[in-house]
Amino acid sequence: MTIETRPGFAGLYARRESEARSYCRSFPVEFVSARNAVMTDSEGRDYVDFLAGCSTLNYGHNDPDMKRALIDHIAGDQVAHGLDMHTSAKSAFLETFERLILKPREMDHKVMFTGPTGANAVEAAMKLARKVTGRQNIVAFTNGFHGMTMGALSGTGAAGKRAGAGAPLTGVTHMPYEGAFGKDADTLAQMEMMFDNPSSGVDAPAAFIVETVQGEGGLNAASPEWLSGVAALAERLGALFIVDDIQAGIGRAGGFFSFEGMGFTPDLVTMAKSLSGMGLPFAALLIRPEHDIWKPAEHNGTFRGNNHAFVTARVALEKFWSDDAFEAETRLKGAYLADRLEAIAAVVPGARTKGRGMMRGVDMGSGELAARICAACFENGLIIETSGAHDEVVKVLAPLTIPREELARGLDILEAAAHRLSTTNSIAAE
Amino acid sequence: MTIETRPGFAGLYARRESEARSYCRSFPVEFVSARNAVMTDSEGRDYVDFLAGCSTLNYGHNDPDMKRALIDHIAGDQVAHGLDMHTSAKSAFLETFERLILKPREMDHKVMFTGPTGANAVEAAMKLARKVTGRQNIVAFTNGFHGMTMGALSGTGAAGKRAGAGAPLTGVTHMPYEGAFGKDADTLAQMEMMFDNPSSGVDAPAAFIVETVQGEGGLNAASPEWLSGVAALAERLGALFIVDDIQAGIGRAGGFFSFEGMGFTPDLVTMAKSLSGMGLPFAALLIRPEHDIWKPAEHNGTFRGNNHAFVTARVALEKFWSDDAFEAETRLKGAYLADRLEAIAAVVPGARTKGRGMMRGVDMGSGELAARICAACFENGLIIETSGAHDEVVKVLAPLTIPREELARGLDILEAAAHRLSTTNSIAAE
Amino acid sequence: MTIETRPGFAGLYARRESEARSYCRSFPVEFVSARNAVMTDSEGRDYVDFLAGCSTLNYGHNDPDMKRALIDHIAGDQVAHGLDMHTSAKSAFLETFERLILKPREMDHKVMFTGPTGANAVEAAMKLARKVTGRQNIVAFTNGFHGMTMGALSGTGAAGKRAGAGAPLTGVTHMPYEGAFGKDADTLAQMEMMFDNPSSGVDAPAAFIVETVQGEGGLNAASPEWLSGVAALAERLGALFIVDDIQAGIGRAGGFFSFEGMGFTPDLVTMAKSLSGMGLPFAALLIRPEHDIWKPAEHNGTFRGNNHAFVTARVALEKFWSDDAFEAETRLKGAYLADRLEAIAAVVPGARTKGRGMMRGVDMGSGELAARICAACFENGLIIETSGAHDEVVKVLAPLTIPREELARGLDILEAAAHRLSTTNSIAAE
Amino acid sequence: MTIETRPGFAGLYARRESEARSYCRSFPVEFVSARNAVMTDSEGRDYVDFLAGCSTLNYGHNDPDMKRALIDHIAGDQVAHGLDMHTSAKSAFLETFERLILKPREMDHKVMFTGPTGANAVEAAMKLARKVTGRQNIVAFTNGFHGMTMGALSGTGAAGKRAGAGAPLTGVTHMPYEGAFGKDADTLAQMEMMFDNPSSGVDAPAAFIVETVQGEGGLNAASPEWLSGVAALAERLGALFIVDDIQAGIGRAGGFFSFEGMGFTPDLVTMAKSLSGMGLPFAALLIRPEHDIWKPAEHNGTFRGNNHAFVTARVALEKFWSDDAFEAETRLKGAYLADRLEAIAAVVPGARTKGRGMMRGVDMGSGELAARICAACFENGLIIETSGAHDEVVKVLAPLTIPREELARGLDILEAAAHRLSTTNSIAAE
Repeated sequence: MTIETRPGFAGLYARRESEARSYCRSFPVEFVSARNAVMTDSEGRDYVDFLAGCSTLNYGHNDPDMKRALIDHIAGDQVAHGLDMHTSAKSAFLETFERLILKPREMDHKVMFTGPTGANAVEAAMKLARKVTGRQNIVAFTNGFHGMTMGALSGTGAAGKRAGAGAPLTGVTHMPYEGAFGKDADTLAQMEMMFDNPSSGVDAPAAFIVETVQGEGGLNAASPEWLSGVAALAERLGALFIVDDIQAGIGRAGGFFSFEGMGFTPDLVTMAKSLSGMGLPFAALLIRPEHDIWKPAEHNGTFRGNNHAFVTARVALEKFWSDDAFEAETRLKGAYLADRLEAIAAVVPGARTKGRGMMRGVDMGSGELAARICAACFENGLIIETSGAHDEVVKVLAPLTIPREELARGLDILEAAAHRLSTTNSIAAE
Repeated sequence: MTIETRPGFAGLYARRESEARSYCRSFPVEFVSARNAVMTDSEGRDYVDFLAGCSTLNYGHNDPDMKRALIDHIAGDQVAHGLDMHTSAKSAFLETFERLILKPREMDHKVMFTGPTGANAVEAAMKLARKVTGRQNIVAFTNGFHGMTMGALSGTGAAGKRAGAGAPLTGVTHMPYEGAFGKDADTLAQMEMMFDNPSSGVDAPAAFIVETVQGEGGLNAASPEWLSGVAALAERLGALFIVDDIQAGIGRAGGFFSFEGMGFTPDLVTMAKSLSGMGLPFAALLIRPEHDIWKPAEHNGTFRGNNHAFVTARVALEKFWSDDAFEAETRLKGAYLADRLEAIAAVVPGARTKGRGMMRGVDMGSGELAARICAACFENGLIIETSGAHDEVVKVLAPLTIPREELARGLDILEAAAHRLSTTNSIAAE
Repeated sequence: MTIETRPGFAGLYARRESEARSYCRSFPVEFVSARNAVMTDSEGRDYVDFLAGCSTLNYGHNDPDMKRALIDHIAGDQVAHGLDMHTSAKSAFLETFERLILKPREMDHKVMFTGPTGANAVEAAMKLARKVTGRQNIVAFTNGFHGMTMGALSGTGAAGKRAGAGAPLTGVTHMPYEGAFGKDADTLAQMEMMFDNPSSGVDAPAAFIVETVQGEGGLNAASPEWLSGVAALAERLGALFIVDDIQAGIGRAGGFFSFEGMGFTPDLVTMAKSLSGMGLPFAALLIRPEHDIWKPAEHNGTFRGNNHAFVTARVALEKFWSDDAFEAETRLKGAYLADRLEAIAAVVPGARTKGRGMMRGVDMGSGELAARICAACFENGLIIETSGAHDEVVKVLAPLTIPREELARGLDILEAAAHRLSTTNSIAAE
Repeated sequence: MTIETRPGFAGLYARRESEARSYCRSFPVEFVSARNAVMTDSEGRDYVDFLAGCSTLNYGHNDPDMKRALIDHIAGDQVAHGLDMHTSAKSAFLETFERLILKPREMDHKVMFTGPTGANAVEAAMKLARKVTGRQNIVAFTNGFHGMTMGALSGTGAAGKRAGAGAPLTGVTHMPYEGAFGKDADTLAQMEMMFDNPSSGVDAPAAFIVETVQGEGGLNAASPEWLSGVAALAERLGALFIVDDIQAGIGRAGGFFSFEGMGFTPDLVTMAKSLSGMGLPFAALLIRPEHDIWKPAEHNGTFRGNNHAFVTARVALEKFWSDDAFEAETRLKGAYLADRLEAIAAVVPGARTKGRGMMRGVDMGSGELAARICAACFENGLIIETSGAHDEVVKVLAPLTIPREELARGLDILEAAAHRLSTTNSIAAE
């Protein structure tokens, strides 16, 4: 069966989809198919994808091995939905995750299959940290993004998102991320002063929740020293250390986890986005066993076991994480990306590069310029978006599997747009 | 590729899956495949499925038409994940949903694709109601269940679930559902007295959120009179009327929506579970156009567009809702189910039937007896669960597509278990 | 030294006192002196005082024995302000309170001198109940009034007062007071159903806080059966039972405490208003010893020890509560008041009497009529106010020490106004 | 009438006063009388009072002019309690306050007579700021102290006090006071960065509430530059600027208001403690007229008009604030105090002086040493207490009216104790 492209799609969406829709406004075409790093619209036009589902498609679109396994699963009438019951697909995933991911990293964490969204994993983490410690206050960081449900949203920094709550967001103290007060301010030391002062008014924390690289917040990448300092502070204060690895994890910012090699092990790790491998809804919370005090069904949900995602996620682990090749190749690509972005930043007055691994971008100095650059890129066949508090960072989240030449091609488009528009900008400003 | 059943699955789960797991404890086998109303475990044993993913599989497991369409979609490299961008699969779903569902029911609602869980749709509804009205207080009802994230959980009644929050749940007033104070108390009239008393201390409501039949809360089915009374009260008070149709909708309790023919149109309708048709994570919020005041991306999420679910959901609409046949057939099955359950209730001292449509069960009078009946059923090849504040209701949520003979077979198993155990119970009690 | 009446007082207040001012708007004169039940304005006009500081002046204005003791105290340079340090005045009060009040009633409560306002005693009670139980939820009742600070306000029912918060008021569930749903609804039984239903969504309570007669809420007087039922429910649920005796206590509604002879002893009792005897700011919280788990200074305050109030409060106890004479005399006056009010209610169509003891009034059926009656009374030399959710109750809170003839005179004025205006009202309505 | 000292007072308090009592534990005697800066216990022993009711007795105990006016008032049967009705005493106070305080300082503020405690004035200020701005978030500062009721407590920093709530304290963001992060960190600039970052997660503020000198927090004195910077930031952000002048005001830290001459006028000013002049409960909130949007009675209270306090407060204004003499004399005493404390700090290793005006102390480096010094002082006839997050600051809050020789005598006692104990301390540490 073939879905025909429908001509009148624009009217349909305007008439029937909520005003909350967003990305489709920047990329007003109808996409029909996608392979690895290329998406094709209903007019047959190809686009290099530097958005990759906001890092949900680290392995690209429609990986052939995942496709094959999923089609076999479906064709064989294997379980698609089984609540949280044991299924062969779930067993296979869990066994593989233990063998290829947890054991080699000496992580004794247990896996909680939360509702299949990052927000749900974050909610589970926040609830659990409060239960474990008997405390309410969770420390989140400036420019952090953790989701849209009331608990997760309370930990999210963006004012525009917070305004959606229609109600006060409580229980979270927002503290400055590394560098939030400039290079000279030691935000870790200041945070320690706040917690060591019994009259600071900042209540003892249940947890610290942090992204190692802030995807939505503008590709701020914390140093291993700062992150391990926060981890140590959490431990000293009797708080849990939660890494929200939803966007930076699964190879995007380094190893399978973004915090590997930094000298600490989080108490809780939230995972989603690229975890399923193929873009299917899937999320998990890793929990150190001593904190796994949930009662049965105390946090439940209908879609805790997305069996299709179990299949593709298992294939992804086997294909990309059985040895170091993928990680090594990603590291090389990340270095190339860094070089190219430095060159782009060099042509834009006041611009600078940000990020780590294959999670990098250019702070263009203004959201207005960044938006114009992204729009120009799309006209030239590149899907790319901004992030940051002022949408001032053009971010590159290409599939990690993107071929070098396509990565280069996308960067060429970006470079040309940045060069042209920053020049126009400068002239206009004069 | 075939997934072999792994022998040691029990140890694997004990070792690596969080203690939050639940259904797998009641049904401690590994399921391998499933077709319509039958699940098969790794030993080759078949079970009639009267749980159906808690009403997520109203069309049964692995419907062949949905399977075929999904396999075609995958094989053709159509988009699996595209954030909320326009895709051919999304356009086709939205157009079909408008044509077959909204227009015939004269509903001018807009569709918001929230994160793909019921909880996320509920969170979006609660946030939007507060934004629209500028009020905080949302009225939910005794025995209501709306999800596990902090916002949705605040509207959920069950103490065991609420304890998982580890923090106070605020912003919701819980009021008695119809019948909560016995047959003689008019809970609607009392609620009106509370809101008409400016010194009641109950703040003006942003919204009322109600299930027409309370799935988790014990299959309490509200009357059309009570529901339309709540809808009228909401309107009079300037509050939004939200029907949470996640479990009762999509044919389970009557029409496509559970509230059809009751004389009111909700301002917001939450949908999930059987919406995708095949058990894939998918949720939506229907919004009357005048309330669609979201700003772009004000409530966003990575998996807002589960394109695989768009495909299966569209096929489900075309197959089951193009005419009245499915609804009529379901009505007949519901009547048969009602008769059989009456007979079962008659053999259990103090038992009574509850529910509506194909969403019915038997209040066994005690959670202990209900649990023993369900366990006995599973030994005899029937998957069935309890609900209710004391888990005292054995609930039948068979696929609506279940063949008559399998429905009868499952009910035979249930009847035998109820008869045997209630007798034992009575004897033991003497 | 004589304070001259200043002619321009109206302009002064309009210019410099906040719009929050209230009673002075109903009684727009300047009062200069007051003796027992009569206040005199700057024009030399006398008014019978049926407001008595909202029950703060149960012993009337400027009792001569209290005056003398206070003047002696001041003249002798005894301590006026000593934080919570031991002073001779404090010792004398505490010893007298133990001897004349607590011991005869077999109450082993400890006395906490909170900040000298009723609201502060309520705040201390709410905080302590939460600390003792580890729970958050406090049950307050429709039409209850407990104060204006954020904690106390959360327990107050009136919407107009709650709106002053400018923020959501959390942590309190408002439940129907006896009679709130009409005579036939058993609000106690319904409350029990809510708490016995583990899925009601109403969290386990830290405390129930109740007025035995609701002063601001419209002189609703709960029956001993209902109150002792709430006390028993609290005990069964492991919650504290708090009687807010600020307005109904100190002889107003019966004995020294309003709950005497009802068969229960509250865990906590809040006291203020007439406690000081002479209208000086003074409040206390009585605490059963097993609940007195405060750490030193955990709830503190600058004016915890109002030594002037210790003096007058002690004199009041010695003068009025050394034997039963005052209580007996009050009871007779209360009966007389009841009779007179019945007669007044009889002339107003639809009116009915409310209240208990010397805390009675007439529900005039509308706030508009009640306001006009009060205004007419003031013109004729009677200070009287309304209460109730719609300000529909004209309430008589005369000093308990009011001479019979003055009580009669005030009631004559009220009767005449009620008769005249209700007739006018009826005629106007025709 | 004479109150005899009762011999068994210790048993009485242990038996009947709540464990919340505090200062009486440090000063376990029974005080009988007090004149200016000297208190006398029941044994006839005199103590110099360097606590002065925590700055409630800036004019000393039992000022003879206030006494005389108050006795006249009482003897003349003038109104003691009149709710918020106009009385001659109230008119006289308000007129005097306008004439001697507000007009000369060109302040057009209106006066709100809140409940007669500082906490109540703070609660009114917080509520009003939220109403005026429609925002929830109030910024308070590390080591700030604002009271014990739920609203005020949410703005208070001390963990021990906050623990008394038994519930989460919400709606306030605690930010670093000047110097909280050491001399090099510009906490004002950092605060601006937080508010100028739309993704900081710190919501737009309704108000900033600040003490110019933190009495309970350890005598931290903010610079005029920092304070006016906060005032300017508040204005830029559309937030109200609240100075809590309860402890530092009324001459203690400088002029009548502690912020005079700093170049800004607060939107709201909270006043209590020494406002009544003689230690009587009394509080007020000053409100810029454009923010006085209260509806009548929207924040009310029984003791809003403490007429006795109106009398003494008026006398205090006339006696001490009709010209500059008192302020000038206080400035000289403050300079003398500063010199003496510098000398004391010099003998204690690691000690340093803190504070401003007549609100100064010595940070002894440890709470343990500070407590021992205070205890030794009391043995030698000096009442003095600690403050600070670790109770490490010995604070001098002598009456501003203290004669020079008594001030010297008290400081001699303090100096001797500090010298002796710090030496012992050093020796013990070796």
